[in-house]
Amino acid sequence: MTKKNKGLLIVLSGPSGCGKGTLVGELMKRGDCAVSVSATTRAPRTNEADGVHYHFISHAEFEQRIREDGLLEYAEYCGNYYGTPRKEVEAMRAEGKHVILEIEVQGAFQIRERCPEAVLVFTTPPSIEELRRRLHKRGTETEEVIEQRIARAKEELPYAEQYDYIVLNDALEDAVADLNTVIRAASMRPENTDLSGLL
Amino acid sequence: MTKKNKGLLIVLSGPSGCGKGTLVGELMKRGDCAVSVSATTRAPRTNEADGVHYHFISHAEFEQRIREDGLLEYAEYCGNYYGTPRKEVEAMRAEGKHVILEIEVQGAFQIRERCPEAVLVFTTPPSIEELRRRLHKRGTETEEVIEQRIARAKEELPYAEQYDYIVLNDALEDAVADLNTVIRAASMRPENTDLSGLL
Repeated sequence: MTKKNKGLLIVLSGPSGCGKGTLVGELMKRGDCAVSVSATTRAPRTNEADGVHYHFISHAEFEQRIREDGLLEYAEYCGNYYGTPRKEVEAMRAEGKHVILEIEVQGAFQIRERCPEAVLVFTTPPSIEELRRRLHKRGTETEEVIEQRIARAKEELPYAEQYDYIVLNDALEDAVADLNTVIRAASMRPENTDLSGLL
Repeated sequence: MTKKNKGLLIVLSGPSGCGKGTLVGELMKRGDCAVSVSATTRAPRTNEADGVHYHFISHAEFEQRIREDGLLEYAEYCGNYYGTPRKEVEAMRAEGKHVILEIEVQGAFQIRERCPEAVLVFTTPPSIEELRRRLHKRGTETEEVIEQRIARAKEELPYAEQYDYIVLNDALEDAVADLNTVIRAASMRPENTDLSGLL
């Protein structure tokens, strides 16, 4: 029995401010994990590089990709499209990399539809009060935006029940260990295991 | 967010000779794991104690338990019944113990029917040749019995695909670590997580 060489597809969702970005950064240290760069039709901000922060493409090109089934998931937000290019993800997985997608709930469920083997992980803060404290500490948003994010978190949290795993992000090192545990366990799922030598 | 206090139900299957007993013994060292004692109608062997190796009960009592839905799974084998008492398992889980059941494929699927939250783990040997070597090394079975066990293993292995996780038992310490990983990951499943403080 051997592990299949194909990397896992790991979807990470969770409220803004619960440390998804930091967690993804920690996973990247593993060497066998990669993030997918999203495609978007919005204009690049001054500090954003094409192919690094996003693949910046035109509206027409994005819609062509939708028609050609070239996106694992996509959404429209404030008049712009955002999506995950299928080919890029598949190429990384074929190289044996676990691809981490940091996407919101609706995108996560689109991924599950198209890739039933995807591992959906929802990260939660220990409490709404702690989430508010973290958003304040970050100091980048106005009070109004913070309250919008809290309201959004309260909308998203019930969907955690539909994920494969829920990872509490209280202490970062524990959350990283938990994510690594989820990845190791997922690699023991039958669909990721090659029994052909045994059968 | 907290973990639910209820223990997990972990079903361990796999061919005879692939080290299930040893693995269960290692898990018992965790302190938060317990094994369920099966009920059977067969007569005790000289070294077997009631309530330790089995609950030895009469045919009539066993059939009453079947009627009263008192068994999580049961099977008839060589004219005797063998089964897993529901109450005992539930009591241990209510105390927060992870209950480990070492049962064969059909029993495992009965458990899944009745307890959809059960975690089904299939242990495999690295190869059929290695399994044969281990059975020989054990030195307790005749050549004929060994070949029967090999034939049975070949029948069982395809069912591994229907389990939640497949754990390769090559080096014992790796297999123990893998089982601990599966248990930790399973405790992060939504059904084992209490989000009520967050919602």
